[in-house]
Amino acid sequence: MAENPSVLRETDDEARKLARILLRSARSAAIAVIEPDSGGFPFVSRVLLGIDTDGTPVILVSALSTHTQALSADSRCSLLTGEIGKGDPLAHPRLTVQCEAEKVERDSEVHNRIRERFVRRHPKSELYIDFPDFAFFRLTPLKASLNGGFGRAYALDGEDLRIRSPAIDDLAAMEARAIEHMTSDHADAASRYAKAYCKAEGTDWRICGLDAAGVDLISGDQLKRLEYEEPLKSAGELRMMLIKLYG
Amino acid sequence: MAENPSVLRETDDEARKLARILLRSARSAAIAVIEPDSGGFPFVSRVLLGIDTDGTPVILVSALSTHTQALSADSRCSLLTGEIGKGDPLAHPRLTVQCEAEKVERDSEVHNRIRERFVRRHPKSELYIDFPDFAFFRLTPLKASLNGGFGRAYALDGEDLRIRSPAIDDLAAMEARAIEHMTSDHADAASRYAKAYCKAEGTDWRICGLDAAGVDLISGDQLKRLEYEEPLKSAGELRMMLIKLYG
Repeated sequence: MAENPSVLRETDDEARKLARILLRSARSAAIAVIEPDSGGFPFVSRVLLGIDTDGTPVILVSALSTHTQALSADSRCSLLTGEIGKGDPLAHPRLTVQCEAEKVERDSEVHNRIRERFVRRHPKSELYIDFPDFAFFRLTPLKASLNGGFGRAYALDGEDLRIRSPAIDDLAAMEARAIEHMTSDHADAASRYAKAYCKAEGTDWRICGLDAAGVDLISGDQLKRLEYEEPLKSAGELRMMLIKLYG
Repeated sequence: MAENPSVLRETDDEARKLARILLRSARSAAIAVIEPDSGGFPFVSRVLLGIDTDGTPVILVSALSTHTQALSADSRCSLLTGEIGKGDPLAHPRLTVQCEAEKVERDSEVHNRIRERFVRRHPKSELYIDFPDFAFFRLTPLKASLNGGFGRAYALDGEDLRIRSPAIDDLAAMEARAIEHMTSDHADAASRYAKAYCKAEGTDWRICGLDAAGVDLISGDQLKRLEYEEPLKSAGELRMMLIKLYG
């Protein structure tokens, strides 16, 4: 709740990791934009969220919606992620990310990459993802504000939410195949990861994303993020990492 | 998702009722504000929500938070309410309300009234509600946008979310007593209301608000709103209404 410099805690690696997990494990977000033709009135709505291979959040939106019309006129926006759990809604960690939005051209390489990852994360979006009025926007984080619960506020740079690794493209190229392999030959691994690293119950977890910084896990309506301690430096490290995590 | 005039449905009483319930049953909301000193960058965060006796949403915020500093510089804001349930996050109804914020002076009559209602709705807020840096803001709705799920978008006026009745003040004056009476002498009524009118399970519901337009029901982390078909016209009608609803 407190973002005033005087009440901010020093941003450490633990805070950065929590912020990344809050962003990368969110299925949806509240997005704040500037409403067009209103002299700057803020407008907040809900959007489905995905994550590109470099950690950049992406949204899938309809051209008919106010937020899309707003972003087309003013690319500045802000995302809120972090689920409300039991007890006081303000006791749960949440993240505000202020971003610059950029529309993704349909049928570009970037579009195809984002689309593939998005559908794995939101299988039902396949029903409308190719409708002509729907488009992806990449939202590049400029800065962020983490609220870890009462009195635990941290300021972050946009860079803190970006994945930096020379392996990003190589991993993106093999992601679908690697997920298929894990699903068919090591079906129990995802549930084991979810339990060991994400405090998640159940045995029907599946991997829905693999990037240089971690693993996305899905089970029904639940999405979890397993964040590595350090990003992989080459695609060849993926296999050993997945074996090591299996324990 | 669609607020463009060409895809809006005609706003009917059912849409208005759904919008009121989405606002009045929310424990928290995402709030969009204009960040100070950033040239108009939108900022979204989470706030605890209450409702004043005339239906005006109220928030309890710390002076140290970005949203409070923003509202002090620019009173325009936007609230998003409506919980995410099972399945696609966008299949669930949600409401965007654009508001004008006004700080409530501490120890004013309005402050005392709002504080009393707020504590009943958020019992744990009593721990910090009187801290010197905390304050209430009343957020007067100017207009709203209801999204009832895919393709079901409606535009509403601020007035659609206001309670209009000559009984507001009389009911406010007797609210605490009436709740106490219902709790001590008709303890089962709240759970009966919750089940019959709010599709809620469980037997530990309590009434936490009574106003001219309906009843607020609370059970642990859950909050439900029973909205009357028409607002009460006098405080004397409350008793008969509660008996009638009991069935």
